[in-house]
Formats: sequence, C-alpha cells, structure tokens
Amino acid sequence: MQQVNIEEARKRRYPLGIVLVVSCDRKGKANVMPAGWSMDTSIDPPMWAVSVGRTRYTHKLISQTDEFVVVFPSEKQKEDILYTGTHSGRNVDKFANCNWKPIPARKVRPPLIEDSVACLECKVSGKLDTGDHTIFAGEIVAAHVSQEYKHRVYNVGKRVFKVLINEAL
Amino acid sequence: MQQVNIEEARKRRYPLGIVLVVSCDRKGKANVMPAGWSMDTSIDPPMWAVSVGRTRYTHKLISQTDEFVVVFPSEKQKEDILYTGTHSGRNVDKFANCNWKPIPARKVRPPLIEDSVACLECKVSGKLDTGDHTIFAGEIVAAHVSQEYKHRVYNVGKRVFKVLINEAL
Repeated sequence: MQQVNIEEARKRRYPLGIVLVVSCDRKGKANVMPAGWSMDTSIDPPMWAVSVGRTRYTHKLISQTDEFVVVFPSEKQKEDILYTGTHSGRNVDKFANCNWKPIPARKVRPPLIEDSVACLECKVSGKLDTGDHTIFAGEIVAAHVSQEYKHRVYNVGKRVFKVLINEAL
Repeated sequence: MQQVNIEEARKRRYPLGIVLVVSCDRKGKANVMPAGWSMDTSIDPPMWAVSVGRTRYTHKLISQTDEFVVVFPSEKQKEDILYTGTHSGRNVDKFANCNWKPIPARKVRPPLIEDSVACLECKVSGKLDTGDHTIFAGEIVAAHVSQEYKHRVYNVGKRVFKVLINEAL
C-alpha cells in the first residue's frame, strides 16, 4: 500500500449509488437534490441516513420540517440528475424544470416521484453534524416501488450516470 | 408507484459498495467486519461514516478506542468477505483465518490490509444512535491505495460479491 493524499484515495469509491432527496418548505413547495452520500442505518426500525451539505437549500428545508423522501432514481430520471445537482431550489423550481412528476406521499409532505425505482418516506429521528455536512437519519414510515423501473442509477465518476443491474431481484 | 412493505422496497438498493471496517481492542488486537452501510460525510475536513450494529463486536471496539480503518476491498479479498460477515471477532481471530495481511497504519492503531483498493485511517469525531445501529463518523487522517488493485467489490445481492469497474480512474 502506498500513502497518498486523501482526495486521491477517495476517487476509488466509484461507482456510487445515487439517491434523490425530496424535501419541502413550510408551505409544501417541494425541492429535490441528488446525493451520492447515503446509506441504510437500521433494520428495526427501518432507517435511512443521508449526508447533506450545510449550505444546501435541502439542509434548510429538512431542518425545518424533519421530513424527506429518499428516491432511487431510474433510467427515466437519469438525464435530469445533473441539473438538480448544479442548481439550487432557492433560485429555481426544479420540479417545474425537470421531466419528473411529483405524486403525493402517504405519511410525509414531500412528494414521491413517478417512475422511480423506489421511494422511501422518512421522518427525521436524529441528526449529527459532520464537518461541512449534517447526517439526517430518518425512520422509513412508508415505501413504494415502480413495477416498470427496477434498476438504480449510479454515479460512475466524472459526472457520468449509469443504470447498473440489480441481480438480487 | 405502488406502496409495498419496506423490506421489499429496500431490496432495490443493490448493488451496494462494500467496505471492511478494521478496529482493534485496547491491547491492539485487530478485528474486521464487512459493511454495506457506509458513506462519505464531509469534504473539509474529509470524513467517512459507517453504520455498525449495536450488538457487533466492532461496535464495542470502536466505542472503546474511537479509531477505525475503512478498507475498500479488492478482487483479492473477495472470497473472504462472507466469512468475516458471518463470524464474530469475539470468538475467532479473523485475520488469522482470512488470507489477508495486516500492515501498520500511520496515525491510528487498527491496521491497514495489504492489496486493498484503498484504506482510509479514521478517528471518530461524532456518533449517532440510529435504531439498532450506531453511525460512527470519522475524520480521515491518512489514506493509502494499492497500485495493483483499483476496483472495489460490491454486494450485488443474495450474498454475491463482485468487482465493478470504476470508470472515474
């Protein structure tokens, strides 16, 4: 093993499974950001955690409402992921500008997105500040899948997004 | 979208990038477990987070020492991942029983593993209990890579582990 600078070593983490994090403001207006930094974090109760940059609009929205939806994007959403990651919901309405259809969730206010591989409705049960991000840990209170789209999108590096086959299905 | 039970939706998360979490007891004896639940969690300072089950021996060791090494396993380590995930360091010496060579880290006591895709030395700077797991968030204080092995191992579901190509390199 050869010691290298940390950023060099971190490049070896790809491919990374992408999620979309859907949140909303106090009036119910929805926003969405892509996140490569997310993970399961409990079996019972089922929980999911996501790292959100402290300066992100999504950080402000989740901090206010304690709710978010984790979306595994599908082939159908692939083309718009880069747009949502390079624009802020403070300035643009991403749902209006993306080819995605929001649909009501069952137990939280942020919407699901039609034709996603899966949507997990989450209520924040804990948070941890970590450097320039915050980990929001949410209990999954409802879940949804598409019958048509079954394989997630991954960031394979250099801002390229690809569907990888889930052999577990 | 169709509402389903949560476990059904979570099956759609594969493939999942695997890491090995290396820890050690107060005397310096090392242990290792595989984790599919881990993520980056800060750019500056660089940090990595891992979810560890509350009953795991690794949970006890990291809680005692506040140090761990995150390893991206390589093709060479693939065959022994299942063994480390199905045996406890309380009962067996996993390094003695796996085909892995521990080598000294630079800034923490748990060792690196020879021929890994990358090793990240971490010092715990925060933790969060999440259901039946704890998230340990560690600042990355040193990093190492192999020149020979560059592509990570993924859990593609059903306890099958495969190397996926990192197109970012």
